[in-house]
Amino acid sequence: MMRIDLISAVPDVLRSPIEHSIIKRARDAGFVDIQIHDLRDYSTDKHRKVDDYPYGGGGGMVLSPQPVFDCIESLQGEHNYDEVVFPTPDAPAYEQQDAVNFSMKKNIIILCGHYKGVDQRIRDSLVTKEYSIGDYVLSGGELPALVMVDSIVRLIPGAIGDAQSALSDSFQEILLGAPVYTRPADFRGMNVPEILQSGDHKKVEQWKHEQAIEKTKKVRPDLYENFIQEQQNQEWQQ
Amino acid sequence: MMRIDLISAVPDVLRSPIEHSIIKRARDAGFVDIQIHDLRDYSTDKHRKVDDYPYGGGGGMVLSPQPVFDCIESLQGEHNYDEVVFPTPDAPAYEQQDAVNFSMKKNIIILCGHYKGVDQRIRDSLVTKEYSIGDYVLSGGELPALVMVDSIVRLIPGAIGDAQSALSDSFQEILLGAPVYTRPADFRGMNVPEILQSGDHKKVEQWKHEQAIEKTKKVRPDLYENFIQEQQNQEWQQ
Repeated sequence: MMRIDLISAVPDVLRSPIEHSIIKRARDAGFVDIQIHDLRDYSTDKHRKVDDYPYGGGGGMVLSPQPVFDCIESLQGEHNYDEVVFPTPDAPAYEQQDAVNFSMKKNIIILCGHYKGVDQRIRDSLVTKEYSIGDYVLSGGELPALVMVDSIVRLIPGAIGDAQSALSDSFQEILLGAPVYTRPADFRGMNVPEILQSGDHKKVEQWKHEQAIEKTKKVRPDLYENFIQEQQNQEWQQ
Repeated sequence: MMRIDLISAVPDVLRSPIEHSIIKRARDAGFVDIQIHDLRDYSTDKHRKVDDYPYGGGGGMVLSPQPVFDCIESLQGEHNYDEVVFPTPDAPAYEQQDAVNFSMKKNIIILCGHYKGVDQRIRDSLVTKEYSIGDYVLSGGELPALVMVDSIVRLIPGAIGDAQSALSDSFQEILLGAPVYTRPADFRGMNVPEILQSGDHKKVEQWKHEQAIEKTKKVRPDLYENFIQEQQNQEWQQ
């Protein structure tokens, strides 16, 4: 079973997403063990302090080395970890391929930092992988850690009980998904495209592919460029 | 006061991040009102069903039009909304400037979809803004909605009580942040750079700027290119 350890100074933020929905089902079914650790439990300070002002000024508080080193070293004394992951805006982008790679690991630690960051010595000495989930600023690493956990857990074989769905996602392929529709066929005069109701599997797949190309070209020209490039590479190889 | 309405078929996932940390403080201080709506409460189905199989096959379930239309129209009957936001992987990237724009709005709705999506008629008729928080697949729109809420709330003037910090973030400027350090100056023989301990404000700022440029160049060459471009533009303007 995969094990994910989450370390945070505000562990309560993490609880409800871990205790509901797909992550809960994957935990209950024994596909993943997720443990939350309160960084304050590892502080040697009498007020359980885990942060301090940054050297050289600037607003915000920075996570101190002591509790983080003690927490991670304590965990590493009990288990072998493949990676110590630190979500942070100043890192390369987290992408679907990273989720795929993590889903094949055994044990990982994810350290949630303050929005102003963690002492650089933690990153230099303990952290093995850093990722940014996007170009925006959040109040801490907790939501990025949950995003990573969700993206990883749903890829663990068997965990979501719907392999076809996980495989037909956007980003597993290089194109965005086609529009989706469900019943009723007519909702207030707005109709599901006839081709989707035709039952002609081949035509449906062709329609989906065309729609996917069109949407990708319009919404994400960068991905569309990759797609065209990829197609040309394949043609050359033939 | 800003009002954010979150609509979800798994509302319990949303609770703990909304009820703790910075978002809680902003709510308690009266800077933002966040309401969670259970989509099942709006279903006319006797089993409170909110989703159905997709037309044309493929795995996963798709959110049905009826409960979403009824829920959003009910909210729109009570309040004026600036935007109905739908986080989805097949959309343009959500960036810091979008958080800034939203933080100046009065009322917004964020609709959390299933990972397989929502009926396209919802997107065509009700949704006014679509964003992807990153190129990875999640089990639903709940974590992306929370990411948006966090990024927005911390920018509401006064909400985090630390304006300097919000302004000195990565992505408010064009460069990533410099490494940060806090006490102790010597942790197990690993030392804080002397310049940060010097008290020489001008030298510290220069060091931070150089470090920021160096890190951006190394970790995010795309942002570094923008930075160089921007500098050249400024030079031409002088």
